[in-house]
Amino acid sequence: MSRLVMKFGGTSVADLERIRRVGRLVAAEVAAGHQVAVVVSAMSGKTNELVAWTDGAGAAAAGLDPSDDEYDTVVASGEQITAGLLAMTLRHMGLKARSFLGWQVPILTDDAHGRARIEDIPPAKLLAAFEAGEIAVIAGFQGVTPDGRITTLGRGGSDTSAVAIAAAVGGACDIYTDVDGVYTTDPRIEQKARKLAKISYEEMLEMASLGAKVLQTRSVELAMAQRVPVRVLSSFVEPGEAPGQGTIVCDEEEIVEKRIVSGVAYSRDEAKITLYGLPDHPGVSSSIFSRLADANVNVDMIVQSHARTAGSANMEFTVGKRDAARAVEIVKGAQAEIGFDEVAVNEDVAKVSVIGVGMRSHTGVAKTMFGALAEKGVNIQVISTSEIKISVLIDAAYTELAVRALHAAYGLDQL
Amino acid sequence: MSRLVMKFGGTSVADLERIRRVGRLVAAEVAAGHQVAVVVSAMSGKTNELVAWTDGAGAAAAGLDPSDDEYDTVVASGEQITAGLLAMTLRHMGLKARSFLGWQVPILTDDAHGRARIEDIPPAKLLAAFEAGEIAVIAGFQGVTPDGRITTLGRGGSDTSAVAIAAAVGGACDIYTDVDGVYTTDPRIEQKARKLAKISYEEMLEMASLGAKVLQTRSVELAMAQRVPVRVLSSFVEPGEAPGQGTIVCDEEEIVEKRIVSGVAYSRDEAKITLYGLPDHPGVSSSIFSRLADANVNVDMIVQSHARTAGSANMEFTVGKRDAARAVEIVKGAQAEIGFDEVAVNEDVAKVSVIGVGMRSHTGVAKTMFGALAEKGVNIQVISTSEIKISVLIDAAYTELAVRALHAAYGLDQL
Repeated sequence: MSRLVMKFGGTSVADLERIRRVGRLVAAEVAAGHQVAVVVSAMSGKTNELVAWTDGAGAAAAGLDPSDDEYDTVVASGEQITAGLLAMTLRHMGLKARSFLGWQVPILTDDAHGRARIEDIPPAKLLAAFEAGEIAVIAGFQGVTPDGRITTLGRGGSDTSAVAIAAAVGGACDIYTDVDGVYTTDPRIEQKARKLAKISYEEMLEMASLGAKVLQTRSVELAMAQRVPVRVLSSFVEPGEAPGQGTIVCDEEEIVEKRIVSGVAYSRDEAKITLYGLPDHPGVSSSIFSRLADANVNVDMIVQSHARTAGSANMEFTVGKRDAARAVEIVKGAQAEIGFDEVAVNEDVAKVSVIGVGMRSHTGVAKTMFGALAEKGVNIQVISTSEIKISVLIDAAYTELAVRALHAAYGLDQL
Repeated sequence: MSRLVMKFGGTSVADLERIRRVGRLVAAEVAAGHQVAVVVSAMSGKTNELVAWTDGAGAAAAGLDPSDDEYDTVVASGEQITAGLLAMTLRHMGLKARSFLGWQVPILTDDAHGRARIEDIPPAKLLAAFEAGEIAVIAGFQGVTPDGRITTLGRGGSDTSAVAIAAAVGGACDIYTDVDGVYTTDPRIEQKARKLAKISYEEMLEMASLGAKVLQTRSVELAMAQRVPVRVLSSFVEPGEAPGQGTIVCDEEEIVEKRIVSGVAYSRDEAKITLYGLPDHPGVSSSIFSRLADANVNVDMIVQSHARTAGSANMEFTVGKRDAARAVEIVKGAQAEIGFDEVAVNEDVAKVSVIGVGMRSHTGVAKTMFGALAEKGVNIQVISTSEIKISVLIDAAYTELAVRALHAAYGLDQL
């Protein structure tokens, strides 16, 4: 009997009517002969309510570690409620079901509260539930330390819970969300965006980390590492209606018809920091970026250029918007040691990326990108590349224009 | 170092400002040198929200056992949230604190979900927290079965949690509520009601079961059985203000100045059922009440009288209002076997009781009661007595009048 983990996000379980809809989707998979585990998020809005309370109680106030174990105790109650309600709903439909909280599975994590990593999921209790003909309804986003403290995995962690559980029980993982699959780009920006039937783990990972919000990055990493078959599909179907095929995330080898570029992603969550008048000698970059790394500031794109003044250079790099102020503070605090003249921040930027495993074997991808942007008058501020993606930093006002131009340039509306 | 369990109900933790007030009360007891455990209820209104969701998910729908373990999983999240928030608040005040959920203590219960009974509380983890200088903030109302399912103790169960924890760690128990102690009667009905400095376990138990809502009956039973010193006091004090002495619930022997009557309680949660024209032979009562007991209907007062027709009798008994319809259904279903003519229900009744350990050694208590009620023209429908209380069932419209008359008749305004 094949095993299936179905994951439902916050909007899919936002109220009792939607929870009943989830119940019907689960019942259909049980009827199709699967042993089913369901992973649920908190009801939409619930986590924000709980987080606001913890802020009020002092978590966000000065002097308290944000990685408070009590924060996790409070916030994990959101998924607990959904798990109980869905188990009840399934029982009411005449099915056998029981809820599992993180500590009941157990989903063992490290003790990095608020952003814990899953270390082990002993599958015995879930397998016993399957044997007993029960649907295991598991609270996502949460785990437990070996000494019995509740942890949470950080925002979006329910995707990771689902993939990890699928790996633990040896099953496939269906991620139900409010869209019916992975698109060539955000359909809210480009109406001609097409749903992809399949996408490789590598591409999905780049898409997720470059701004596509359909799957959480860590969950894709884990799926790729453990070779868990993942499918993205919509929970918003009417009674009696099937959820469609969605998008399958799989090994590159399983995709017969390869595309050069599979998608265009964008992110407005960037800030560009520029240091002017740096001394032009070895060790300067290391001096800057080791300080930022020590402070847990994630640096993304980096470019260094020679200034007009001989013997001096400029450095540009990007960080997440919420880290920008802290990054500036850190470099300013070390201005004397680093030895730069001036620092500037620009939050009015966006990163637009094209992703495709076909880049490995095809040339001219960058040329097409830069040509399409130039034609629309979009100025490129910073470029970064990997084996399967090219990202450019541009003025935020040009985001939609750039996304549409690239979508057309690679023929993604022709799929 | 003496140990103290402080319990705060839903209105005392209704919002973050009140939770901070609770934090200050806890800090004061820590400063006074106590090892402190705090037991908290769900924020006022929270449990009702959660119960409504479980009703919607099918718990209240036909065919589902109301003692669903998933109900407990959902509803227990209310106390979980408060425990986490209070622990955070205490940390923010610079104190060492950590939350304990039912399963983390563990508070071991039977598996009667929704109304579980505490079976054991191994104190090791709480004592370890005390040793580490930590305040143990415990989610009330909840426990865990030996096989790891969450249970709840039923409404008001947080009082019971607190007393059981005090017994387990060998400490006293302070119950903080929205009143500043136990009164001779409900001050909303009789302004001259006086706060009692002390009350015996036996009297408190009768007061609680006869309608006084200040303490939950099971918690008083447990305190009496385990000889836990209990104090009732108000959490509604301004910063810097002490909560006052409240009322001490203790052994009768510790009360020097004994009163004949300590208080007047009342309950409008009664329904009177009358069976007319019963056969006047042995076995009839047994036939009726064994049926009701089998259906878990709790019968309170019972009186049998001979009817005018020779050889036939009438039977009157009271049940809780919510059981009335079911009780009538049960007796009607067995009308042929029991052999009565007619059944009537009267929900327009109230039970008024006077309670006092002094009754054991003083005569004339009943005479004073009946005299005072007769003087005000209050008709007595049913009477029941125990060693330390006398209860009468009267027309509900006379409730306040009767309470005030009895309060004056026993000189309770003169304390």
